[in-house]
Amino acid sequence: MKLALVIGSTVATIKDDNLTGRKLLIVREADTSGKPGGAPFVAVDTVSAGAGDLVLVTTGSSARYTHATRDCPVDAVIVGVIDSLEESGKVTFRKS
Amino acid sequence: MKLALVIGSTVATIKDDNLTGRKLLIVREADTSGKPGGAPFVAVDTVSAGAGDLVLVTTGSSARYTHATRDCPVDAVIVGVIDSLEESGKVTFRKS
Amino acid sequence: MKLALVIGSTVATIKDDNLTGRKLLIVREADTSGKPGGAPFVAVDTVSAGAGDLVLVTTGSSARYTHATRDCPVDAVIVGVIDSLEESGKVTFRKS
Amino acid sequence: MKLALVIGSTVATIKDDNLTGRKLLIVREADTSGKPGGAPFVAVDTVSAGAGDLVLVTTGSSARYTHATRDCPVDAVIVGVIDSLEESGKVTFRKS
Amino acid sequence: MKLALVIGSTVATIKDDNLTGRKLLIVREADTSGKPGGAPFVAVDTVSAGAGDLVLVTTGSSARYTHATRDCPVDAVIVGVIDSLEESGKVTFRKS
Repeated sequence: MKLALVIGSTVATIKDDNLTGRKLLIVREADTSGKPGGAPFVAVDTVSAGAGDLVLVTTGSSARYTHATRDCPVDAVIVGVIDSLEESGKVTFRKS
Repeated sequence: MKLALVIGSTVATIKDDNLTGRKLLIVREADTSGKPGGAPFVAVDTVSAGAGDLVLVTTGSSARYTHATRDCPVDAVIVGVIDSLEESGKVTFRKS
Repeated sequence: MKLALVIGSTVATIKDDNLTGRKLLIVREADTSGKPGGAPFVAVDTVSAGAGDLVLVTTGSSARYTHATRDCPVDAVIVGVIDSLEESGKVTFRKS
Repeated sequence: MKLALVIGSTVATIKDDNLTGRKLLIVREADTSGKPGGAPFVAVDTVSAGAGDLVLVTTGSSARYTHATRDCPVDAVIVGVIDSLEESGKVTFRKS
Repeated sequence: MKLALVIGSTVATIKDDNLTGRKLLIVREADTSGKPGGAPFVAVDTVSAGAGDLVLVTTGSSARYTHATRDCPVDAVIVGVIDSLEESGKVTFRKS
């Protein structure tokens, strides 16, 4: 799974029926300190994440394996909100 | 899902039967202002998108999970037309 | 799907049974003018494509969704031969 | 599968039900000497790996094909702990 | 499929049950002359390939579609040994 920072949200009126009612957040992959890098992409939120949260994003076919996204045409889903990360025995990120 | 800008279209007479009648658009991944970057690729349109639209593109196996693409040999499908994007509390893109 | 240029072919006597009789072409991803870039890879041909053709390549699990590749261990398949591409209202590629 | 070095761990209280009780380790892709490179990502541990271990990581849909991750929304799983690697006839890595 | 050069092998005593008895080779993606580039990764051998062989590697879910890897947690499998490659009408690689 990717570590990613939630940076924004999208509005799309015209969309696939299976996306109706889904919260579509914009995220960017992040390092272990929570600093974002790389291109923004869109993930379905299933854990009430919000802007500024560091989250776990599952991509590919496995993005269809949450209750909220079963059989939906989605390739990225937020499956967790990170509380803290530890690297080489020291905390590199803690949710504020 | 990727944010992508529709930049063009393709004509391919000789193709897999399951692609017959599908609209095959050329898109490029875009940033949160709608500016395109990266290599062009081809996505099946399922939401009547057109050139200049900023769209949501689902890739991989999940591209087969729309009504129009079920069991088709496609790996990218347009599943939404973006109306607006918001980043850090400010609108970075609005459909004109 | 990727836009790709067919640049060559492969011979492999020892291979998985399900690849027997398949035409394995070497392709490189191309831009909208048909100019190749990036690393070469191998795709199964299902549309009688040949060297110099600009083609549509489906990758990942969806490569198994053509008649010729059903349940085969392949991750890239040529699903169409491009006749023309149009970008911003002008033709950027036409098959010669 | 990727060669990857385990560099840390994550804590996420709010997460998908199917991730409850899973050990989520942070890994970075490594070369044949075990030296890490590239972006960190998160993989489910299924083989009691720990920080400093060089491991085998399976990504994509196949990450759901271990007993511990069947039908879970995960896209990376640690499936082995590397004892040694050999390249061109000489050992490039040995677990200490 | 990727063109890849077999550069080495791995030993992993602790691993997923479904990997027991599988030969896990280290490969690097190669160009049409057989010259390796890019990061090393690990693929299951199903065609008795050995160090120095140029091989065809299938990645992703399709890596589970050989007899030896059915339903296994693997994302890369060697499905063929390249005898020769031809590019623009001339042979760029021939197995020695």
